[in-house]
Amino acid sequence: MHDYNYYLRLVEGAVSNINYPSRPAELYKPIAYTMSQGGKRVRPVLTLMTCEAMGGDLNKAVDVALGIELFHNFTLLHDDVMDRADVRRGKPTVHCKWNDNVAILSGDAMLTMATQAVSRVDADIVQPMVELFNDTAMKVYEGQQFDMDFESRNDVTVDEYIEMIRLKTSVLLGCACKAGALVAHATEENANSIYDMAVNLGLAFQLQDDYLDVWGDPATFGKEIGGDIVNNKKTFLLINARDHSAGNDAIELNRWLADTTSPKQEKIKAVTALYEKLGLKDLARNAIVNYSHNALDLLHETKMSYDAYKVFEGIINRLADREK
Amino acid sequence: MHDYNYYLRLVEGAVSNINYPSRPAELYKPIAYTMSQGGKRVRPVLTLMTCEAMGGDLNKAVDVALGIELFHNFTLLHDDVMDRADVRRGKPTVHCKWNDNVAILSGDAMLTMATQAVSRVDADIVQPMVELFNDTAMKVYEGQQFDMDFESRNDVTVDEYIEMIRLKTSVLLGCACKAGALVAHATEENANSIYDMAVNLGLAFQLQDDYLDVWGDPATFGKEIGGDIVNNKKTFLLINARDHSAGNDAIELNRWLADTTSPKQEKIKAVTALYEKLGLKDLARNAIVNYSHNALDLLHETKMSYDAYKVFEGIINRLADREK
Repeated sequence: MHDYNYYLRLVEGAVSNINYPSRPAELYKPIAYTMSQGGKRVRPVLTLMTCEAMGGDLNKAVDVALGIELFHNFTLLHDDVMDRADVRRGKPTVHCKWNDNVAILSGDAMLTMATQAVSRVDADIVQPMVELFNDTAMKVYEGQQFDMDFESRNDVTVDEYIEMIRLKTSVLLGCACKAGALVAHATEENANSIYDMAVNLGLAFQLQDDYLDVWGDPATFGKEIGGDIVNNKKTFLLINARDHSAGNDAIELNRWLADTTSPKQEKIKAVTALYEKLGLKDLARNAIVNYSHNALDLLHETKMSYDAYKVFEGIINRLADREK
Repeated sequence: MHDYNYYLRLVEGAVSNINYPSRPAELYKPIAYTMSQGGKRVRPVLTLMTCEAMGGDLNKAVDVALGIELFHNFTLLHDDVMDRADVRRGKPTVHCKWNDNVAILSGDAMLTMATQAVSRVDADIVQPMVELFNDTAMKVYEGQQFDMDFESRNDVTVDEYIEMIRLKTSVLLGCACKAGALVAHATEENANSIYDMAVNLGLAFQLQDDYLDVWGDPATFGKEIGGDIVNNKKTFLLINARDHSAGNDAIELNRWLADTTSPKQEKIKAVTALYEKLGLKDLARNAIVNYSHNALDLLHETKMSYDAYKVFEGIINRLADREK
């Protein structure tokens, strides 16, 4: 096994080797722009790692890894249009730099390019690979739609929230790992265990995101602390706060949710204090630890080599227990 | 061989058998709405016809045909967002009935569902089928981008226009036929001939659309006559008019292009007269006949049975030499 940066370099190599036609420029330039923005490239790295850990030929997994990264970036591109987000990774989003039409059409093209890339595998695994990829894509769209639905609902349950983040973000991590397992011709049992491992890792990762928005260190967390609180975003914490508060706590929570005039910092401070009073810091911490432990247990079930196990363990700790 | 309506019924059966999950409703309802709007279903019918004409099992081509119809409707759905079109087949478009976000996301899902459907074939043809489908999709996006680019250009050549309509509309007809040939395990030569046949048919069809907008019979043509002229749309006729006019004709053409105050009918009448003076009615007619003849020649090359040939010949005449 190699280290994270080794796989990352393979992914970056594949990204920079994409051969974009020169015309029509407004179709392909936004794709090249999006793909060159970098990011952690977690998903394609997981594909390569899984392939190698399960005894596969790393070179045969590079196109698949690229396809999954293309798909992930396609979802960000279209989500940014839907969310009217102006900035991504410190740069203007495609619909801001160009326009909505360019963002829609180049996103469509990225989705097709992603499907092309994941199909560049040995003939005998094209069918399961394309099936895995398409099934995953449908789940991701469902998650995105549920996420948008939740914005106008005040009765979202914790279970619904977990299901939404499972669909919107976790299954793609599962797909990334399982795709690597398919290239390695792993047993179905191993392929499914690594899929479930990554889904649990994804849940831990997303909950950690909710957690860091409140209790992250502003010095290391990339985003501004408290953004979710200011925007009344229905995170794991807010949904649980609604479930766990009664009497004056519930009144105070609702007052802050309705507040549009107080200084941001005051609202962040008060809601954070309320979350702590309700025991949500521990609740969230425990949920994250639980999903991480599930991930480690499932990793263990694949009976990969100790060497490989340690690399994955490092990723799980890095992603689920991160500070940024 | 069967008649058009027999294949159409198979397609309609497949469309009405699509099993949409009930949730999230705003993801799947717009897809069901779009697919239920009908239309001629030319592309999936061509898939089924080609499959049968080349000795394939019709039942094995139904999902592929459905996938191609899903793809076609996905492109219309996203194009309507980009073109801000409010009505399609007499009904409000998805972004009008719901909103842009719903149209973007349900379109994405339709594209993935299309890919799923075309992959439901025997394992040995999954790879060529997915490759054909994805390559075609990329061309369609390129065509749509060129079409949008042309709106702000005044120097589009006839060759560029033909290339744009080839990409935007004709290659999907080619793909529809070739997909049927793949299911039938036709020879590569035959599969390529039928592809080229359909591309020529598509060119004839699109030029006929431009022609009917000017010289169609208002009683049988579905749309209002002269819409392209009123909107200064860069059709085969306008581009050729620019190329073929000089002196006073060129001055008059440019005056009408800049005109925003005269009654519509006056502009339509004057520009039509100018087109006729420049010999464009015959020029367009000849181009349509040429592409139709090419299509018939290529059809002949496939050496399909006389029975099958006559059915395809009927389609070519129906589409390329239509009144509506």
